[in-house]
Amino acid sequence: MEDKAQIQEAIKSQGEVVRKLKTEKASKDQIDEEVAKLLQLKAKLGGDDGKHQFVLKTPKGTRDYNPKQMAIREKVFNTIVHCFKRHGAETIDTPVFELKETLTGKYGEDSKLIYDLKDQGGELLSLRYDLTVPFARYLAMNKITNIKRYHIAKVYRRDNPAMTRGRYREFYQCDFDIAGQYDAMIPDAECLKIVYEILSELGLGDFRIKVNDRRILDGMFAVCGVPDDKFRTICSTVDKLDKMPWDDVKKEMVNEKGLSEEAADQIGAYVSMQGGMDLAERLLQDPKMSQSKQACAGLTDIKLLFSYLQLFQITDKVVFDLSLARGLDYYTGIIYEALLTQAGVAPVVEAQNGAPGSTEESVSVGSVAGGGRYDGLVGMFDPKGRKVPCVGVSIGIERIFSIMEQKAEACAEKVRTTEVQIMVASAQKNLLEERLKLVTELWNAGIKAEVMYKKNPKLLSQLQHCEESGIPLVAILGEQELKDGVVKLRVVANREEVDISRGDLVEEVRRRTS
Amino acid sequence: MEDKAQIQEAIKSQGEVVRKLKTEKASKDQIDEEVAKLLQLKAKLGGDDGKHQFVLKTPKGTRDYNPKQMAIREKVFNTIVHCFKRHGAETIDTPVFELKETLTGKYGEDSKLIYDLKDQGGELLSLRYDLTVPFARYLAMNKITNIKRYHIAKVYRRDNPAMTRGRYREFYQCDFDIAGQYDAMIPDAECLKIVYEILSELGLGDFRIKVNDRRILDGMFAVCGVPDDKFRTICSTVDKLDKMPWDDVKKEMVNEKGLSEEAADQIGAYVSMQGGMDLAERLLQDPKMSQSKQACAGLTDIKLLFSYLQLFQITDKVVFDLSLARGLDYYTGIIYEALLTQAGVAPVVEAQNGAPGSTEESVSVGSVAGGGRYDGLVGMFDPKGRKVPCVGVSIGIERIFSIMEQKAEACAEKVRTTEVQIMVASAQKNLLEERLKLVTELWNAGIKAEVMYKKNPKLLSQLQHCEESGIPLVAILGEQELKDGVVKLRVVANREEVDISRGDLVEEVRRRTS
Repeated sequence: MEDKAQIQEAIKSQGEVVRKLKTEKASKDQIDEEVAKLLQLKAKLGGDDGKHQFVLKTPKGTRDYNPKQMAIREKVFNTIVHCFKRHGAETIDTPVFELKETLTGKYGEDSKLIYDLKDQGGELLSLRYDLTVPFARYLAMNKITNIKRYHIAKVYRRDNPAMTRGRYREFYQCDFDIAGQYDAMIPDAECLKIVYEILSELGLGDFRIKVNDRRILDGMFAVCGVPDDKFRTICSTVDKLDKMPWDDVKKEMVNEKGLSEEAADQIGAYVSMQGGMDLAERLLQDPKMSQSKQACAGLTDIKLLFSYLQLFQITDKVVFDLSLARGLDYYTGIIYEALLTQAGVAPVVEAQNGAPGSTEESVSVGSVAGGGRYDGLVGMFDPKGRKVPCVGVSIGIERIFSIMEQKAEACAEKVRTTEVQIMVASAQKNLLEERLKLVTELWNAGIKAEVMYKKNPKLLSQLQHCEESGIPLVAILGEQELKDGVVKLRVVANREEVDISRGDLVEEVRRRTS
Repeated sequence: MEDKAQIQEAIKSQGEVVRKLKTEKASKDQIDEEVAKLLQLKAKLGGDDGKHQFVLKTPKGTRDYNPKQMAIREKVFNTIVHCFKRHGAETIDTPVFELKETLTGKYGEDSKLIYDLKDQGGELLSLRYDLTVPFARYLAMNKITNIKRYHIAKVYRRDNPAMTRGRYREFYQCDFDIAGQYDAMIPDAECLKIVYEILSELGLGDFRIKVNDRRILDGMFAVCGVPDDKFRTICSTVDKLDKMPWDDVKKEMVNEKGLSEEAADQIGAYVSMQGGMDLAERLLQDPKMSQSKQACAGLTDIKLLFSYLQLFQITDKVVFDLSLARGLDYYTGIIYEALLTQAGVAPVVEAQNGAPGSTEESVSVGSVAGGGRYDGLVGMFDPKGRKVPCVGVSIGIERIFSIMEQKAEACAEKVRTTEVQIMVASAQKNLLEERLKLVTELWNAGIKAEVMYKKNPKLLSQLQHCEESGIPLVAILGEQELKDGVVKLRVVANREEVDISRGDLVEEVRRRTS
């Protein structure tokens, strides 16, 4: 236990930190964080005045989901899971933490964002950073060479949260992957079909899916004269094309990465290209590009991919885009990313138009799904390095939640947080027992029903509860109804009332709420 | 980086630890743990021979869920969630970790089982230990005074895992709680109704629900002459009656807790009592018990509770049992616990029959749900100590999973891990495009369908896949079928085949798999 005087000293100096930040007009996040520390210190002294002084907040970068948010979340998950199941996927689950070394060496620089658990004796543990590495660990550990699985779970990153833009330290990932040795591009095409179906069904507005191939990028860098050891770093600069105009990207390549202006210009010509199967065919004839075996392999696969996408009837939204260069090191073949293109809901910054930059706020808010082929990752876990080819897609669910929440707020319709079909009410006193009997009949018949936990609730407050929580029907009991063996069924929306024979009530409720 | 020689030294001595344990025939858990440490040390040297040497395991006390386990888990959750929704519950979610101080002082001695996160700068965090404290924090933080919510999520305890008995360090809790100021015993009775419905619907065999009241226990202790400051410790000894015969419980009270033999015998007489409303009435007339105001308040509520349970038609499984004394400090009124009573599936040790003890293995394996009223917990979080009365129930879902898994293994029927209705197959070569076209038609119509990711799969391997994963139907395409505009629909179970016009296929699949 710390000394009281020490704590008071700490409170004083922390108070100054907060005042300074406020004077300097620091960011709200930063001030909030320091205020929280101050409150924590004050709470340590809490016992003194006999009151409980807790800091009532969730940890930085996290949030509770209230019932309304949960209702939206459930709806989104249902749509996504239905799609995964329609495509025959199984599901697995893995622990929220892994042995620390399972995650070591998988995320490069981002490793600093991993949450470690305190060493309390025993194994060293870390919270999972994504679902892909645990999936690869699971496959290697169980020697599984074939599986089509989805996994929806929370992952953890000690990143700087930007919660208004749907970026959290605790957030959902929603992954679908196909592992196994199959004929080229068939599972890859199905992943795109799945993205197409999910985004269509969620009704998020228009979208398009950009496709490229890691081998085409590498081949392109080679024929443009990028030195081998600069592929990765130039690739990550190209990756910025969705948030920076070409001129800035070029500047970074030439000035920061030391690429020749000529090489940069050649890259610039390629990365402005967009098309479909035709573009792949044209590039296969391109005198320069066709010199790269790698690029040709990638382009041949893109052609094959598009032939399958035609059969799947989704070419209207898919674009072969040479500027797409997803960051993750582990991709080995096709890569893709889905973006919302409808203005207003989620602005997409067009890189090609050379518009003067973009504020951080509007960067890539349009990206709602991404993925690709990673044929080497499982082999990293296998003691003998046996490879299991994989292709997968991750749905950017937090961003989708944000958009759905905004939509729900914008439109007048109320989000229901329960599914109650009927409320059992009474207008008169001393009918609690009769209400409980009737609600039991309804529950036992599988009807979703509620009753107020009061002996003699007012009819008005019972009706108000229905209005507030969107319950469509009320079964009203009174002395007369009991004598007649009926129930007065009231439709909340239009206040119509009709007597229903007690024996017919269950059927009537089902009919009216189906 | 540690020195290589140091690591080799550590490997040598850890190897001896493992050998010693094996010689001493230590428990499997203990040996596994030390072997894991050894492997981790060996992994540190891994880089040397160019191979990746990972310890391929999940952290101690945790497990992956494979697709079969997930299918069972989903079924159980569906049953439970449907019941919660039938009773009008909303749902919320909270982060997996809380500020460390939110959990401080809530779990008494068990605090040592809390997982802390490493201090990586910023707030001090701990993984949640249960869902009740985060719920209370959520209510106080959002000033909510009325809610009926369920919450299904994983919680974390650094306990000694006994995984064969369904005890893990990471496990699900499945809580339903009603918060709000209501008339006595109505929400409490609904919690019991919910337990009754869930256990009936899951088909776990016969069960009973024991009910008692914290006030009756306290009143009983008072009239039996237990000193005030010994209530809690005597209560925790009574709590052992489900795993120890009365003689041993009495010995503990007298020898370890220093209770007089007379007081112990008086308690012994009470805690052997079981009954229903009649017992509550009898005890209200009991010359000794009726002297305690607290006990009388509890007994009157038990009477009221049973009157509601009669209306809910569940008295056949509910027993008022004075030996029930749940451990948690925060209960303030009614408490209850549900036990499976069917021999075989989950043996229940009968305390009353004075059978000679029980092995640790069979202790309380029958308990599958529990809960009670806790009117003071939310007030611990409110700056002004405002109370929100709560009553709730927690379903012991891991134990239920174990039982369902055992049942699934015992019975011949295969657990399906996907919901695929039909496989699109072909007997001839070069029909990949036609298969992809047909499966697209099916997907677009909402049918769950699969196709093999091979250009020319063998018919036999396509049919085998159906057998293995329980797909009931196959649509077989051949040149002749394509010419005739039909599909050969094969029923996997009986190998019947019938030609269906292509336009009727979707309807036919729906009809046959509904």
